[in-house]
Amino acid sequence: VTEPRTAWRERGSRETERKPAGERWADILEVSARLFAKQGYTATSLQHIADELGILKGSLYYYITTKDDLLYEVIRGAYLVGIARVDEIAASEGTAVERLRRAIEGHILHLIETITATTVFLHEFDRLSDARREELAALDYTGRLVKLVAAAQEEGSLRADISATLATMSALGSANWIYRWYHEGAATPQQIARDFADIFIRGMSVP
Amino acid sequence: VTEPRTAWRERGSRETERKPAGERWADILEVSARLFAKQGYTATSLQHIADELGILKGSLYYYITTKDDLLYEVIRGAYLVGIARVDEIAASEGTAVERLRRAIEGHILHLIETITATTVFLHEFDRLSDARREELAALDYTGRLVKLVAAAQEEGSLRADISATLATMSALGSANWIYRWYHEGAATPQQIARDFADIFIRGMSVP
Repeated sequence: VTEPRTAWRERGSRETERKPAGERWADILEVSARLFAKQGYTATSLQHIADELGILKGSLYYYITTKDDLLYEVIRGAYLVGIARVDEIAASEGTAVERLRRAIEGHILHLIETITATTVFLHEFDRLSDARREELAALDYTGRLVKLVAAAQEEGSLRADISATLATMSALGSANWIYRWYHEGAATPQQIARDFADIFIRGMSVP
Repeated sequence: VTEPRTAWRERGSRETERKPAGERWADILEVSARLFAKQGYTATSLQHIADELGILKGSLYYYITTKDDLLYEVIRGAYLVGIARVDEIAASEGTAVERLRRAIEGHILHLIETITATTVFLHEFDRLSDARREELAALDYTGRLVKLVAAAQEEGSLRADISATLATMSALGSANWIYRWYHEGAATPQQIARDFADIFIRGMSVP
């Protein structure tokens, strides 16, 4: 489900507030992400989401079939943007270690900029249906970072006594855990991105 | 609730399998942790837990009042062991940076050794009631690591251009995220602990 099944106006809903289908769909995803992030996916019902939107629960069925559709769309949206960003950085100029540093910084900035959707992604990924979890896992964001780490090891910039996979899980962990503690007024996103990337790259650098 | 309210045998339960109260309580916590870790706290009912134990749901009320009691006991158990370990390491011999390295390695080994309980701790902490969440947060495990990082900065072992708090969140993140990807057959716990601590300490070392 990537597009609403039908234009909102064409259906003659009973809601007083009418919006074009695209806007309404964006609202549904935004409200779903916010409720899933705040109270958890399992504890959030379609009734909660409809109430928060000020529409009838039945109206949600113009857009989706099950609650899993909403979880999938929120996670998929955050994931595809992240993959596009890391692919762009991986294909950009510079040594592998320079691109790796930019990829880690970009990961952290993307996570904080879209923290509601990424919180749902990072916290509720295992609640997806098996087929959808496998579909998204196959896109293999992690594998892209492992390749960058391995390339930086091959060019001699990073130490090779730690496996590229384990090193990547260390970098990803420090970055992903941000959704658990970040709040505005802590360090700035730019500061966090710069410091975390620097600790990792220096920690992995050949002495 | 730290002790069962009454000995199991004294109550004359209808269950066929009789166990001393201490063993039964340990079983209840173990099964609760396993179900919370696997399917999530919200999705797990007291009925599930009783079914898995092969007892009547009503029998659980000899031990607890609400499901939140079980979440609290599982999390508190894992947390108190972690705090005792880090306090012992912080008070041990050696420079601050040596103790910090051992504290990070100890954190990771403890997490993997007790991964079911720590998964519940790390994933479901926010589902605790407000009072209990605040009570446990006040024990301030993170603050102990921040102090070690600050001491290592003061002794001149670690760079001081990154704040002790931010550096600690980076180390904690890479360590805590392990519950999301660890499986037997990946790297050994010892390898993960050594490599992750080394990346962090070298990344924070004064050049």
